[in-house]
Amino acid sequence: MPVVVVYMWSGVSAEAKKRIISGITEVFEKMGIPKHAVEVIIVEVPKESWGIGGEVAIEKFKEITPP
Amino acid sequence: MPVVVVYMWSGVSAEAKKRIISGITEVFEKMGIPKHAVEVIIVEVPKESWGIGGEVAIEKFKEITPP
Amino acid sequence: MPVVVVYMWSGVSAEAKKRIISGITEVFEKMGIPKHAVEVIIVEVPKESWGIGGEVAIEKFKEITPP
Amino acid sequence: MPVVVVYMWSGVSAEAKKRIISGITEVFEKMGIPKHAVEVIIVEVPKESWGIGGEVAIEKFKEITPP
Amino acid sequence: MPVVVVYMWSGVSAEAKKRIISGITEVFEKMGIPKHAVEVIIVEVPKESWGIGGEVAIEKFKEITPP
Amino acid sequence: MPVVVVYMWSGVSAEAKKRIISGITEVFEKMGIPKHAVEVIIVEVPKESWGIGGEVAIEKFKEITPP
Repeated sequence: MPVVVVYMWSGVSAEAKKRIISGITEVFEKMGIPKHAVEVIIVEVPKESWGIGGEVAIEKFKEITPP
Repeated sequence: MPVVVVYMWSGVSAEAKKRIISGITEVFEKMGIPKHAVEVIIVEVPKESWGIGGEVAIEKFKEITPP
Repeated sequence: MPVVVVYMWSGVSAEAKKRIISGITEVFEKMGIPKHAVEVIIVEVPKESWGIGGEVAIEKFKEITPP
Repeated sequence: MPVVVVYMWSGVSAEAKKRIISGITEVFEKMGIPKHAVEVIIVEVPKESWGIGGEVAIEKFKEITPP
Repeated sequence: MPVVVVYMWSGVSAEAKKRIISGITEVFEKMGIPKHAVEVIIVEVPKESWGIGGEVAIEKFKEITPP
Repeated sequence: MPVVVVYMWSGVSAEAKKRIISGITEVFEKMGIPKHAVEVIIVEVPKESWGIGGEVAIEKFKEITPP
């Protein structure tokens, strides 16, 4: 505890994943939760499968790429 | 708000994804929720990873394909 | 298939839930998916547990209530 | 994008929720993602509904409480 | 690993939760996964928030109660 | 009902998936839930996207592979 599921657009770099995982874990550690108890799962979803405001992200956010 | 996670069998067409995203967004829009607040995430899962009634979908629903 | 998980702020009326469930199911029905195969799960989360832009919704969207 | 779903034991304080939400949002902000795009949803689950190693948390971690 | 999220109708007894947690954990243990690595999270959702075939479970499955 | 989402590291064999699906379904069947009502969805996530204790599983559990 906790378990954290992160939904992001596909294409996140290995380096960014590491930073997300260590960063989120630290948030809980600072609150007194033991580090080893934190599980972070990054689920990557293609931009054509992600809708915001009724539009697919691949069209609405054409130029934006994940970190 | 809301965030909608849709689990489907892999192989959904880009066209179908668009219709799912716009259709679900519209459901909330009609209830007075601003369009831009609706986020829809389609998670595709292979039929061999999906079980219904204890059987994998790839065997139980051999002939059925996603839209 | 599909399974749809809808995250919303707590306090959605029974009437609104019915409309969400029937509306989302219809989206898939129109695409040729049999109605009985669609499962919709509404997970209500208190506004104090929901963050947007780093702020809790209970403060950022004080006056907005779910449908 | 991203959407972050955090599963925790029930009983998290409002103060802790704020820190979790602002902390996680900051992790993404530091990577160049605009703050307003980050959505964090904390799903609280009673300790009797949470199993680790085959045992319910309410028995296995009797003395531990969420932040 | 694995993390298992179980969505059920509200009202599952403490006894049933224990059996679900130990039962699912055992499935993975038999496959060689160490017991302590298995995390099971039961998310209870009221029958009025659960739709099957476009109808809410509280109406469609009036007489059925969770274990 | 129930819907079970299983998060695992990528690379689970088709044979293991079958055993997970039938095994989990059986847990509920033994409690009196009709088999056909149980839906199991296995979401595979690469080890570089999975963090435990702040580290990515691909480094922390280099030698361990999924069943």
